Amino acid sequence: MLIIAERINATRKRVGAAFAARDAALLQQEATLQDEAGADIIDVNAALSPEAEVECMAWAVEVVHAVTQKSLAIDTANPAAALAGLKILPSGSAVLNSISGETARLESMLPLAVEFQTRLVVLAMDDSGMPNSNADRWRALEKVFAATDRAGISRDRLLIDPLIRPVATNPEHVPQVLEMFGEIRARAGGAGSIIGLSNISFGLPTRKLLNRTFLAMAASAGLTAAILDPLDPEIMAVFYASDVLTLQDEYCMKYIAAHRKGKL
Amino acid sequence: MLIIAERINATRKRVGAAFAARDAALLQQEATLQDEAGADIIDVNAALSPEAEVECMAWAVEVVHAVTQKSLAIDTANPAAALAGLKILPSGSAVLNSISGETARLESMLPLAVEFQTRLVVLAMDDSGMPNSNADRWRALEKVFAATDRAGISRDRLLIDPLIRPVATNPEHVPQVLEMFGEIRARAGGAGSIIGLSNISFGLPTRKLLNRTFLAMAASAGLTAAILDPLDPEIMAVFYASDVLTLQDEYCMKYIAAHRKGKL
Repeated sequence: MLIIAERINATRKRVGAAFAARDAALLQQEATLQDEAGADIIDVNAALSPEAEVECMAWAVEVVHAVTQKSLAIDTANPAAALAGLKILPSGSAVLNSISGETARLESMLPLAVEFQTRLVVLAMDDSGMPNSNADRWRALEKVFAATDRAGISRDRLLIDPLIRPVATNPEHVPQVLEMFGEIRARAGGAGSIIGLSNISFGLPTRKLLNRTFLAMAASAGLTAAILDPLDPEIMAVFYASDVLTLQDEYCMKYIAAHRKGKL
Repeated sequence: MLIIAERINATRKRVGAAFAARDAALLQQEATLQDEAGADIIDVNAALSPEAEVECMAWAVEVVHAVTQKSLAIDTANPAAALAGLKILPSGSAVLNSISGETARLESMLPLAVEFQTRLVVLAMDDSGMPNSNADRWRALEKVFAATDRAGISRDRLLIDPLIRPVATNPEHVPQVLEMFGEIRARAGGAGSIIGLSNISFGLPTRKLLNRTFLAMAASAGLTAAILDPLDPEIMAVFYASDVLTLQDEYCMKYIAAHRKGKL
């Protein structure tokens, strides 16, 4: 499973303050720690305020890219902010997080994905809003696939987010989304799947327990990437165990190495 | 999910010593603690030695039954030990753990299940030994079902154990067994499924992490019962979270209650 490291997000209090103060050292420390903890991709969300996002994104991407070889995910719904981040990075190296089947978002973001040869996170929603069923999800995805196919973006450059909702308020979405991971494997032409874990536990206590239990279930159902905090030792332990149990860790070598480093 | 509590097992050192010394207080304490921790069924394994098993089983069942209202699982491959335990308990209350498609075991144990109206743990194996595929598992199960159907034992009295093997040596069995849980739901006529968790992690470090990660995956795949240690707070936390995420905990009430008691 791929890990997209989520900590460089301006909506987090401490990180938002670092953005406001242009505290490069804090962002670079977050980048380095996440890189060393096993992140495959480091997410950068610079949405401190709508007015400042473009400038903040350019600054943050510059600063983070200076200290890590890992891919960066440019996390924004604002095409100007996406452009500001992408043009700093080597072509073909970045992930654009995200597009969707919403017409305006698709039309504004897709040309950037083509220009900078990015991988793409695809939200399984369209102009009718958040999906209420897997039929809704597939309808949105077919619209996106038509556009990405036409633009020459191969399916294996896509990571599909089926958009989980809180189990406390929308329990029926949990089995739906788990089923989607298998369906994506079976019928999305080589696209991967991705999930942001924290939404599922909204409104319940001991949220991280639910998040990591869902990670195990999602991994078993076919999930290929997760947005998570690689500095959380408990979720990383479940990540290592899940890779063993989904046969993605040959001879359990990564698991045993993590054990030797005291990470389990 | 049902919890079958595994601690009263004579092959455990401390419990074996209690069997040898006829230390009723220790067995009763184990029974009470497991009952209070949320066990639905309390397993009793008296296999201290082949010669002593019948007498040990009778003693242990008597002692444990005196302090708990929960069902007991009579855990033995020896029909004489099974009889010794079952005849102490109210008819219809016990679980016989286990029968299989092995001819001798099936013929000797099935009459006891009928006489004492037990639920049955069914190992998915036959005279050809441990299963190597789900086809092997189903061949063994069809043999058992033919016998239980003929004996008038309804399918919902059965808990099927697909027999997991260590992921370190037999990784291909992990996806097989997860698939079996779904197949059992779909085509075993109302029978449940059960798993002993510890086998999967044999030979690897930090075994409990693998066991509880597999529990989450198995729950999501359709597992209905697990043999585990309800005094292990980490596996119980995954049990509570799994019941939420498989929509078996309405309004998350058990989860929230467990949180309030500091169990998560």
